[in-house]
Amino acid sequence: MPDLKPWKTLHTKLLLDCTPWLRVYSEKVELPDGRVVNDYLRLEQPDFVMIVPVRSGCEIGLIRCYKHGVGAVDMQPPAGYIEPDEDVIITAQRELLEETGCQAEAWFELGSYVISGNRGTGRAHLYLATGCQQVVEPDPGDLEEQEVIWLSLEEVQQRWTDGKFSQMATAAALGLALNRLGMKDIDLP
Amino acid sequence: MPDLKPWKTLHTKLLLDCTPWLRVYSEKVELPDGRVVNDYLRLEQPDFVMIVPVRSGCEIGLIRCYKHGVGAVDMQPPAGYIEPDEDVIITAQRELLEETGCQAEAWFELGSYVISGNRGTGRAHLYLATGCQQVVEPDPGDLEEQEVIWLSLEEVQQRWTDGKFSQMATAAALGLALNRLGMKDIDLP
Repeated sequence: MPDLKPWKTLHTKLLLDCTPWLRVYSEKVELPDGRVVNDYLRLEQPDFVMIVPVRSGCEIGLIRCYKHGVGAVDMQPPAGYIEPDEDVIITAQRELLEETGCQAEAWFELGSYVISGNRGTGRAHLYLATGCQQVVEPDPGDLEEQEVIWLSLEEVQQRWTDGKFSQMATAAALGLALNRLGMKDIDLP
Repeated sequence: MPDLKPWKTLHTKLLLDCTPWLRVYSEKVELPDGRVVNDYLRLEQPDFVMIVPVRSGCEIGLIRCYKHGVGAVDMQPPAGYIEPDEDVIITAQRELLEETGCQAEAWFELGSYVISGNRGTGRAHLYLATGCQQVVEPDPGDLEEQEVIWLSLEEVQQRWTDGKFSQMATAAALGLALNRLGMKDIDLP
């Protein structure tokens, strides 16, 4: 394998500051071959968690709501931004509770992923949460009006295969969760 | 199911114009319950394709290169931005040829996904391309120095399960491709 070298950032200029939601930077970068690019864009957005919850009967919990980035009503696993200084797993447990009213028996990490390989734009931290039981009423506190829907594993698998979920994070999280659920080290109620 | 209504966009203001790579808008939106949000951010970035190529021997092709958004050397399927007025499948075929030097016997759509459910930021169009054969030398024309690596299906499955791929689009595309490759309607060489 060739020795692939990182780019060098020579200068960073803040183009737009919409803290805490977005910061856009223009970077002057030097490539390994010596070429210089004057205006390579880098975006900072807050990291978020997405949790695939499973309850008794092998049902997967999804949030159904209008998403403005999609421009339509969509279904997705519970998700939310990480608060400053909040541990990622604490965010995941908090968002699961707020959005579905559930607590989980067991948590499985499905990895953490950069949203854009070119621009950055934060990371998504994906989880599978099994043995979910509702302990309170959902209280999401989000802008979106929403409902919780529990679908069978088979229905989620079919919709995922058919490309029926509209968001990239949903496609990634459901694939990894369905794969993990098929592995032998997980006890399902 | 409740009748979930879309948000109404009352006013749109362009905050940052870095065409063709990025446009950032602030939108004044009205929620179904009458509340008004004055500065909801929407991002426009170009759509892109990502192709999971499979060649004889059930090997999957990946590009290994430094990605500035990740800040590290990473592996991902071939991918690229859609040119203005270019058909998506033509982009996919062009990018596969440029990045790996391959042509494919059969193409399978794995769906198209919005990058951010909140902000938009464009769509990724995912494909599986089987029966790939190299016909020319790769000539990616990208900023990144890169190499093509062919890994066995099993190794890709293991790395994907272990969360070893760093980018969200890679996690989504590989999951959907591995799932599709396990289905009975695909003839693999």
